[in-house]
Amino acid sequence: MNPGQRPDAPIGVFDSGIGGLTVLRALRRRLPSESTVYLGDTARVPYGPKSPETVRRYAAEAADFLLGEGIKLLVVACNTATARALPQLSASLPVPVIGVVEPGAREAVRRSASGRIGVIGTQGTIDSGAYEAAILALRPEAKVEGLPCPLFVSLVEEGWTEGEVARLTAERYLEPLLERDIDTLVLGCTHYPLLAPLLQEVVGPGVTLVDSAEATAEAVERELEVRALAAPAAGARGSARYFVTDDAGRFRDLATRWLDEEPASLETVTLVPGAGGRRTGTEGR
Amino acid sequence: MNPGQRPDAPIGVFDSGIGGLTVLRALRRRLPSESTVYLGDTARVPYGPKSPETVRRYAAEAADFLLGEGIKLLVVACNTATARALPQLSASLPVPVIGVVEPGAREAVRRSASGRIGVIGTQGTIDSGAYEAAILALRPEAKVEGLPCPLFVSLVEEGWTEGEVARLTAERYLEPLLERDIDTLVLGCTHYPLLAPLLQEVVGPGVTLVDSAEATAEAVERELEVRALAAPAAGARGSARYFVTDDAGRFRDLATRWLDEEPASLETVTLVPGAGGRRTGTEGR
Repeated sequence: MNPGQRPDAPIGVFDSGIGGLTVLRALRRRLPSESTVYLGDTARVPYGPKSPETVRRYAAEAADFLLGEGIKLLVVACNTATARALPQLSASLPVPVIGVVEPGAREAVRRSASGRIGVIGTQGTIDSGAYEAAILALRPEAKVEGLPCPLFVSLVEEGWTEGEVARLTAERYLEPLLERDIDTLVLGCTHYPLLAPLLQEVVGPGVTLVDSAEATAEAVERELEVRALAAPAAGARGSARYFVTDDAGRFRDLATRWLDEEPASLETVTLVPGAGGRRTGTEGR
Repeated sequence: MNPGQRPDAPIGVFDSGIGGLTVLRALRRRLPSESTVYLGDTARVPYGPKSPETVRRYAAEAADFLLGEGIKLLVVACNTATARALPQLSASLPVPVIGVVEPGAREAVRRSASGRIGVIGTQGTIDSGAYEAAILALRPEAKVEGLPCPLFVSLVEEGWTEGEVARLTAERYLEPLLERDIDTLVLGCTHYPLLAPLLQEVVGPGVTLVDSAEATAEAVERELEVRALAAPAAGARGSARYFVTDDAGRFRDLATRWLDEEPASLETVTLVPGAGGRRTGTEGR
């Protein structure tokens, strides 16, 4: 029997780096009894500019690693990995797989009055057309405009989430979307919520910003209920374990700030291509 | 006998991505009879924010791959990889290894009148202190100020090398250096020469910009002569082969623009940790 079929098994959360912590936070707030195992592929971040084949290979290695940790469900908390690899992961893994694109698209459709929806994300996410497809599946008459904003990730990682550089960058990127008269803007990258206050100023009060974290946590809750895999609600607070592929120190600082608690269990691991994402070296740092 | 000991063997050039093409271009102009093999680790770029251990591991895999191609000398055309991994590579490889830091430092010392020298680069390069050490070894009374400018790489990759965003970013980064009254600024990242016109405007005519490409090509020429490894000068133009770990299409476009010739031989390869940088899959794209 697959250990992933037990309600007391943890939920796996995978991201290319740190951005997925926004999804993890939403998940842990909504489902406090669930245990989680987070893997951030910080040695190979960013996935955004990489080819579909490479992103699929990296995602498969990450999924294999988390399966080895006995997870009952996998959350792909990275928009690029969801956009590029979700069908393949869903087809090949023995546990349910939830990505961030479908929940984000659903939330956007729910929020938009006019059906004119903008989507911003990495080059890979926008090139994939995944958000557009998901939105049109729910609302075929919607008008969806996708736009890659590669510099936003760098601005967030540099901590320049306000000030003139960030503002001018946002204005330059978003101008074409605003000309299309959108009423809803999907933040299709887990880094972007950190720019939300600035982006809201730039797009004005008439545009609703949507991020996928809450919607994804809701989708996970539903999936666990449907499959009778939810942890007992009366149980103790679930544990949280963290793995990264590089620079655990920096991850610890950011995670502590974002999650309001220091990761109790954090290890650095190496993912091996073609070896089932096997862990070859483990070092606490 | 190591094939790398023959004068007709190629020179290996390794970079984390595309930036090393500036070094390759200088090399092919100065030494037209030499054949070259370039490896860009585009699947794992950027190296700048990654930990020393991870950069050293990636550099070792790249070097092993190029050794497998029979190179006679290795150029580490990436500042971060040079700063983090050069001593280890020099000690362990059976061929001479030339990095970009020492030649750039030498050029800066030659150009600076006051000895007040600024160095900009990635977080990894600046954290390593490699430029400061190399400059002080040549001129112990120099005053060296290092400053990480992580956003510059993203701006170059986005093609935003002029305009207000780039200018404001440069002003914000460089202000503390200008306050130190430097007369020479080392562009300690192979992406930065593409920002040189803007940076020159921001720092003013009293500051000399130094990039390592020419100085590195000169150092390679000297090393080949000393070791009697230079290709016969009367020979035909040397061949140029290219390998990348991701997205050969984008690399082809950039290389064609930067080198004024389309790469005739370009393959995508996978580097395997712990297996001597062995190539596991090869696909032309």
